[in-house]
Amino acid sequence: MVFAAKKFINNPNDVVTEFIEGLVETYHGLQYLDGFPEVKVVIRADVSAEKYDKVAVISGGGSGHEPAHAGYVGEGMLTAAICGDVFASPPVDSILAGIRAVTGTEGCLLIVKNYTGDRLNFGLAAEQAKSEGYKVETVIVGEDCALPPPRGIAGRRGLAGTVLVHKVAGAAAEAGLSLEKVAAEAKCASEMVGTMGVALSVCTLPGQVTSDRLGEEKMELGLGIHGEPGAAVVDVQPVDVVVSHVLQQILNPETNYVPITRGNRVVLMVNGLGGTPLMELMIAAGKAVPKLQLEFGLAVDRVYTGFFMTSLDMAGFSISIMKADQSILDRLDAPTKAPNWPVGTDGNRPPAKTHVPVPPSRSIAESHNRPQELSKEGRILEAAIQAAATVIISLKDSLNEWDAKVGDGDCGSTMYRGATAILEDMKKYYPLNDAAETVNEIGSSIKRAMGGTSGIIYHLLCKAAYAELKANAHSEVTAKHWCEALKSSITSVSKYGGATAGYRTMLDALIPASQVLEEKLSAGEDPISAFILSAEAATAGAESTIQMQAQAGRSSYVSAEIIATVPDPGAMAAAGWYCAAARAVKEQYQSSS
Amino acid sequence: MVFAAKKFINNPNDVVTEFIEGLVETYHGLQYLDGFPEVKVVIRADVSAEKYDKVAVISGGGSGHEPAHAGYVGEGMLTAAICGDVFASPPVDSILAGIRAVTGTEGCLLIVKNYTGDRLNFGLAAEQAKSEGYKVETVIVGEDCALPPPRGIAGRRGLAGTVLVHKVAGAAAEAGLSLEKVAAEAKCASEMVGTMGVALSVCTLPGQVTSDRLGEEKMELGLGIHGEPGAAVVDVQPVDVVVSHVLQQILNPETNYVPITRGNRVVLMVNGLGGTPLMELMIAAGKAVPKLQLEFGLAVDRVYTGFFMTSLDMAGFSISIMKADQSILDRLDAPTKAPNWPVGTDGNRPPAKTHVPVPPSRSIAESHNRPQELSKEGRILEAAIQAAATVIISLKDSLNEWDAKVGDGDCGSTMYRGATAILEDMKKYYPLNDAAETVNEIGSSIKRAMGGTSGIIYHLLCKAAYAELKANAHSEVTAKHWCEALKSSITSVSKYGGATAGYRTMLDALIPASQVLEEKLSAGEDPISAFILSAEAATAGAESTIQMQAQAGRSSYVSAEIIATVPDPGAMAAAGWYCAAARAVKEQYQSSS
Repeated sequence: MVFAAKKFINNPNDVVTEFIEGLVETYHGLQYLDGFPEVKVVIRADVSAEKYDKVAVISGGGSGHEPAHAGYVGEGMLTAAICGDVFASPPVDSILAGIRAVTGTEGCLLIVKNYTGDRLNFGLAAEQAKSEGYKVETVIVGEDCALPPPRGIAGRRGLAGTVLVHKVAGAAAEAGLSLEKVAAEAKCASEMVGTMGVALSVCTLPGQVTSDRLGEEKMELGLGIHGEPGAAVVDVQPVDVVVSHVLQQILNPETNYVPITRGNRVVLMVNGLGGTPLMELMIAAGKAVPKLQLEFGLAVDRVYTGFFMTSLDMAGFSISIMKADQSILDRLDAPTKAPNWPVGTDGNRPPAKTHVPVPPSRSIAESHNRPQELSKEGRILEAAIQAAATVIISLKDSLNEWDAKVGDGDCGSTMYRGATAILEDMKKYYPLNDAAETVNEIGSSIKRAMGGTSGIIYHLLCKAAYAELKANAHSEVTAKHWCEALKSSITSVSKYGGATAGYRTMLDALIPASQVLEEKLSAGEDPISAFILSAEAATAGAESTIQMQAQAGRSSYVSAEIIATVPDPGAMAAAGWYCAAARAVKEQYQSSS
Repeated sequence: MVFAAKKFINNPNDVVTEFIEGLVETYHGLQYLDGFPEVKVVIRADVSAEKYDKVAVISGGGSGHEPAHAGYVGEGMLTAAICGDVFASPPVDSILAGIRAVTGTEGCLLIVKNYTGDRLNFGLAAEQAKSEGYKVETVIVGEDCALPPPRGIAGRRGLAGTVLVHKVAGAAAEAGLSLEKVAAEAKCASEMVGTMGVALSVCTLPGQVTSDRLGEEKMELGLGIHGEPGAAVVDVQPVDVVVSHVLQQILNPETNYVPITRGNRVVLMVNGLGGTPLMELMIAAGKAVPKLQLEFGLAVDRVYTGFFMTSLDMAGFSISIMKADQSILDRLDAPTKAPNWPVGTDGNRPPAKTHVPVPPSRSIAESHNRPQELSKEGRILEAAIQAAATVIISLKDSLNEWDAKVGDGDCGSTMYRGATAILEDMKKYYPLNDAAETVNEIGSSIKRAMGGTSGIIYHLLCKAAYAELKANAHSEVTAKHWCEALKSSITSVSKYGGATAGYRTMLDALIPASQVLEEKLSAGEDPISAFILSAEAATAGAESTIQMQAQAGRSSYVSAEIIATVPDPGAMAAAGWYCAAARAVKEQYQSSS
């Protein structure tokens, strides 16, 4: 069975009408003429024919090329856009309605893409409007460079370069020029631009089946904006090669499609046909600019990259090159309220962009060494780290086993890597007499060795503790300082990791530990006892995770029955090193007293 | 064999780097930090940390969501965007480089989407930056409304609504607010917005094979921006139904995801995920606005429709609804130079748009009647029309036969319809004593009856002749006036139809006729002889088309051998009616003299 291609539409016959309704909801400055479904005309809400004292600039054609043409209606660009059905020329009566709605005493310019239907319908409307007394001029744009001339009049289609002609004409009209002069500028602009398209897929019309003309390895060169077959079908190439080919075709001195020669100034437009992501268009633009500069000897004064004249959902893009002098650049840069004319592209480009070097850290990283002699605090800290890391190494298999049930089975191995690195680095680098810097170095060891989410969480934990210790514990690090450092670590991990108590994470060991530590210290308990009691709370907390539902990380996707058979390995690891450290501190104090 | 999906890229590993290069070529106001390939940071070209005296607003995340985030860098919005690889969180060192590059004395706000990787990497960078002395605040955005709460912290992803938070924060920073206040406004905005996505297809990563998870008849509801599976897979529905479902889900009072109740003011964002044409997004927007107003009792103050946060080439869209008070609207409306913030959406919307009625013609169409009595000129004109139409009727089969070889075989039938209609209408309506108006009426008959390209070309011919006669032949229509009318007709048909002499069209009969007529009249020949001589030129011209290559219309696609066997049917038809008319005029003059 064959299905119509999936689309977000209602009745396929209503797509243009409903598009226009959405458009005027989005842009307050746009309005439409009544007369649906025959008449589909978008006009500037602030223009009415009776009072308009500038030349009206009108364009249009088949729909399916959004944002063209209705997206270019606005002060400084089009005064009205006449929308046909998808890929169908609008009827004469719609064009006439548009002309009548916005044309004042200064007359109107019709900008028409070079397709027989558009030429004839706009032409007939122009003649009718003239016979009603309107001043009307018409400029036909056909800037396609895909086929070698002479290919007959059907050969040079109007493509995305037409949007540049809209802009030049719209700016000239806004500047108050006469109809004759606006038409002359538009005609001149249309003769300065060349375009060529390439595509990887064919577009799908609303209500129809998608064509698979191209297959998995081919692309088309020189196709039009209605899915008409291209001039050639070739193997897919890197976009670098594609861009070179297209530029050579447009600027070929033999065909002489555009009067551009070495030393000229140009503007570049890279136009997406609908289905190609902006990322790819930017890649093409980034390759085209240096090629134009270095290979063709052109100054690239403006670059327009985006979706200007699409072909529904076609994967493809076109490149347009327009010869530009200062007067054309002024027209392109002139302000406009048209919603889809690009922003931030005006003004002179620096001839070559020098990029900003990566800024250095404010705190020049001191390179540390293990002190020759350890202070009493240094010895205690060393013992605590040694004990904590050793426990983690011994827990490797248990942690992996638990993690195999509720995660990806590598918790023990990951923690093992961190613990091993800490033990190694401690011998060489850790400035153990400076507790804050030592904590920071532990973070660096973890960052280097652990990787994964648990690596970054432990790095974060160390970084927050370091910042707290560094800011507040200057000469001597007291139990109270360690307590504050633990609290700050927990706050950071919770904030950035997103978990809190009861989420079945390492915090279910550390939060109870921190609470008991603070409570006992505040109650005047001696620091060693307080640490030991808080370590017991950590163990109890970690073991209680067996009853918890997972709410963070991978475990949250595991079934509740399996979860209920094991504790959280992250919490068990945290309780493990915390307890080992507390016991080691106690032993050090007891042995030294 | 399985091929990687076709894309316009070079090495898949370089896509983000090359994207950034194209971006800064396009937008002069953007700059990037060196340090490729690890560091991928886009910053405002006009900001450097040493001199910046406002709060820097920084965001970022995985790439593949263009224009987010780099497209929102610019005065009034983001100060820097940190780009990860495609769908991968940026590393801590890149984020730090971005912070250091743009953060001055007022500090920086990090706006982070709620994904574990982003939270942790941005979090670690924030802590590191704080330890270096920077003032840093972080706001995490998770406005996904796809899954019923409580779904754990992984449940609420950051989606397109994040862009609204960027805008609010950027405008607050630009207004000179303190870091604390900018962060508070961003946090408040993040709590006012809800988003839900729907998709018809899965996106394709550069260098990978396209997944066909969905098939031909299904769509996904509530998916994320990285192609992660949605909350439900359902049959494709009209977009009207899809929009209703999404709005109900976001505004569901039971889940209470966003604090929006009847009577509130809201803004609407319809965001394309990449592969869905703008036309479809506008259709969705056009349906969403009246639903929000009528079904949910909300005032829709702003509508943003377009591509804000995509997922490469995914066919789909998301809807975001944000509760808005005047202060939020002021932030959204504040000017920005960010290239991809939408234009033309600011300011108060009219509560209901009344659309412009289709303007009437300036020339109220007079309804004509055949005069009771014909003047001498009227009788001659009638005889000429009668003869011309009769010949066309008799040529029907020959014309069809020739056209079957070089076109679509209906030239004779089409011309027959026109001729028959002219004979019928002449009896009732043609004001034969007024030559100009009669020519105009012939055009109307043709418009009504003929259709197709030849219909519009003949209509154009009549319209141009009418305009010429009406403007210049007031009391009496002379041979000279007819000559000018013919010239004007040819000019119009050539201009709008695109053909000229030698293109194998009707003009190859009419151009020689017109030239001979003008020549003979100028030389003082009597008008009747001049007409007859010009008719002979028309016939000769038409017959000469047998030697011409086709350069316009369908015949231009037919092989030269076939073309060389027949004359152009359009030219033969034109010569036929022209000759018949000339002979009839001669007979009338001879019989009346």
